[in-house]
Amino acid sequence: MPPYELSLAAAAEAIRTRRLSPVELVDSVLDRAQEVQPDLGAYVALTADRARRSAREAEREVADGRVRGPLHGVPMGLKDLIDVAGTATTASSRVRAGHRAQADSAVAARLAAAGAVLAGKTHTHEFAYGLTTPQTRNARDRSRVAGGSSGGSAVAVAAGAATFALGTDTGGSIRVPAALNGVVGLKPTYGLVPRHGVTSLSWSLDHVGPLARTVEDAALVLTDLVGHDPRDPASLPAPAADYLPTAGTDLTGLRVGVPSTYYFDHVDPEVETAVRYAVRRLADLGARLVDVEIPMARYVQATQWGLMVPEATAYHERTLRTSPDLYEEDVRVLLEAGELMSAGDHLRAQRARTLMRQEWARMFQEVDVLAAPTVPATAVPAEQTSLTWSDGTVESVSDAYVRLSAPANITGVPALTVPVGADRAGLPIGMQLLGRPFDEATLLRVGHAYERSDA
Amino acid sequence: MPPYELSLAAAAEAIRTRRLSPVELVDSVLDRAQEVQPDLGAYVALTADRARRSAREAEREVADGRVRGPLHGVPMGLKDLIDVAGTATTASSRVRAGHRAQADSAVAARLAAAGAVLAGKTHTHEFAYGLTTPQTRNARDRSRVAGGSSGGSAVAVAAGAATFALGTDTGGSIRVPAALNGVVGLKPTYGLVPRHGVTSLSWSLDHVGPLARTVEDAALVLTDLVGHDPRDPASLPAPAADYLPTAGTDLTGLRVGVPSTYYFDHVDPEVETAVRYAVRRLADLGARLVDVEIPMARYVQATQWGLMVPEATAYHERTLRTSPDLYEEDVRVLLEAGELMSAGDHLRAQRARTLMRQEWARMFQEVDVLAAPTVPATAVPAEQTSLTWSDGTVESVSDAYVRLSAPANITGVPALTVPVGADRAGLPIGMQLLGRPFDEATLLRVGHAYERSDA
Repeated sequence: MPPYELSLAAAAEAIRTRRLSPVELVDSVLDRAQEVQPDLGAYVALTADRARRSAREAEREVADGRVRGPLHGVPMGLKDLIDVAGTATTASSRVRAGHRAQADSAVAARLAAAGAVLAGKTHTHEFAYGLTTPQTRNARDRSRVAGGSSGGSAVAVAAGAATFALGTDTGGSIRVPAALNGVVGLKPTYGLVPRHGVTSLSWSLDHVGPLARTVEDAALVLTDLVGHDPRDPASLPAPAADYLPTAGTDLTGLRVGVPSTYYFDHVDPEVETAVRYAVRRLADLGARLVDVEIPMARYVQATQWGLMVPEATAYHERTLRTSPDLYEEDVRVLLEAGELMSAGDHLRAQRARTLMRQEWARMFQEVDVLAAPTVPATAVPAEQTSLTWSDGTVESVSDAYVRLSAPANITGVPALTVPVGADRAGLPIGMQLLGRPFDEATLLRVGHAYERSDA
Repeated sequence: MPPYELSLAAAAEAIRTRRLSPVELVDSVLDRAQEVQPDLGAYVALTADRARRSAREAEREVADGRVRGPLHGVPMGLKDLIDVAGTATTASSRVRAGHRAQADSAVAARLAAAGAVLAGKTHTHEFAYGLTTPQTRNARDRSRVAGGSSGGSAVAVAAGAATFALGTDTGGSIRVPAALNGVVGLKPTYGLVPRHGVTSLSWSLDHVGPLARTVEDAALVLTDLVGHDPRDPASLPAPAADYLPTAGTDLTGLRVGVPSTYYFDHVDPEVETAVRYAVRRLADLGARLVDVEIPMARYVQATQWGLMVPEATAYHERTLRTSPDLYEEDVRVLLEAGELMSAGDHLRAQRARTLMRQEWARMFQEVDVLAAPTVPATAVPAEQTSLTWSDGTVESVSDAYVRLSAPANITGVPALTVPVGADRAGLPIGMQLLGRPFDEATLLRVGHAYERSDA
């Protein structure tokens, strides 16, 4: 197995025991990234020189017996909304031409301190305002969308062009591309990972989190991301928690909620079958399945849009006035629509969120996690703009892709997506596990148990 | 001195020592209320029969040695936004014709448990959305406004028609009428006094608090109002605090901030002189005066309106559609204006509030309290709609009356107004003391020291 195919955990163990040097690993990943870049377009920019320098430094430190931790010497991709000092944060937009970040974002600084090596900045749907990432192609099928907005991060991890990556998630932007490319993605609890230095789409819904090849890898990255940073007003102190799942797969005593409403409506039959089969596996591991009704489900879409649209417009207010033509058409239309939203609609969305949080907290008294599809369909062909469901309903691809992810953004609960197979065309399917605020440890334990039972 | 003129503390002491019976006190206050009602219009409705029954019951309990506390057997007025089971909450509006509250509001229940006797429901500017309370006349001069929106409560307390009263304060509605009628008014910290069962004007700015004849009286009432109630989502647990000021007047060590900006701009010279004289007195009592600049002062008005207007409109949405003609013209115009406000303006106001809170917290690291005028002018004649300042600036009466009160609503800090004399026309002037969140005890101590040094 070439080093670029290693999981983060395996690579870290090989580095720690000196069977693999950070230079070998980084070279292997960079070569792979360059090889697949023309086809997949995962990266805005590879930072190869910088990465090789960091790798040599890591190699020296490891040789001196100074291993910082499992991320030391491991190459990563950072979504190009995340500031890294001295590099551009393009947000995959012409608006950011000539940009240069003055300082590291909170997460970039934490990962650098952990010894992680920046392989490059990955493509995002422009300013994270979309679900497809048109510059990037699906890792399994070049004719299909990468998903978004963290499409570059998901494709890089899936293709071996990064050992792990970071994304951001405002309505599903980590989980959707992770699911569509067959990797693991975690949207942590709102406030757990600080967003200082990360370009905002909608500050009350934005989250930063890892994409990786295994649940264990996501846990390793999360461990280095959490902790309070006063520069993000929403940042909260991380509760003491060990995110690393243990080897066991016994889920006895765990109550897994299976949604009887919302999450299986208008879902592709192959997706539904794969997810229900995966849920069954959790029961085989000892979990008790509990039917649950999703509270206030009919308010999800209006609430998500009622919060996101005006916040996004407020962020872009000035540029939208001075240089509207620098935005891609789809993003500009969304930003301009935000100027028309009334304060009353925004208020109703804020109130609905408050109530929804209360109702979800009540639901999570009955179950420990919720298991559901991540995305109702697999990756669509790049030119496809809508989905037609069996009852004749037509839904835009964006609406469909965001539909099952948005509740975790509105309520702030953590949500993990894990690959649970593929459809007949070989396109990956994801299962989403949602949990109580700050109970990432349980999600990771369940996801890991599923993964291991799959082996 | 007739019983209706007694302070709450004096009445309580007389009741406790059986020199005064609750029946005598309540009869005296009710007679006084009926006497002045034709002239002053403080009450929407007197609940005389109910009050006399309660007074007899209190008399029996006291005779049996079961004195519940200082409020036992003491007659009060409740602003007619505050639900009392079995009575109408008219909000001084035709919209509420035929209303009947099913249950006590949180504060009415707490005061009833403390043995307080409801004398009646006092007039509010319709739905609290105004600063004059046109149904009520100023206690010192019938041709002048009562101030508002808790005008009835302030006038009742000033005129001896209630021993104390409750009001609500969204932009100054307790403090403005208290100042204009020469009584004490306290807007507590946001979240300290629960608002369940109190008609909302703007939930993120609304507060409930006492109006009384002395600072000590306000402290006695506050003691029975505080404490968490989960039915008000903004309610917080009250920190352990003794609100009752001690007899001493020594303020040595206290840092009193004197605003060098904002609070003395466009203030009537007689008001400024009286307040500065009162501040000087605090220094004579040992306080150290510290000049402070008020942070973000130019955002106050836009922030107050940007929060209040859409929240008020959202509350009245349905009635505004079905029966707009039931509202008074001034209130209807304000409510309809709220439908035009954009989500962007509302968002900007929310963000400005967050920053303002942070800046004020920083300011309160330098000083313990802030001393300022409560209202920039005394009570205007009822027909007057604007004020002209010495530099020729014209300001509406509403804008002027709310201007110095609104910062405490936006930031949530506690604010106490105490009478500090009168202008040449004999109209009362108020000094406002503002403090750190949940530090009511310091405000009450300073106000009490001022009051005693005045005696």
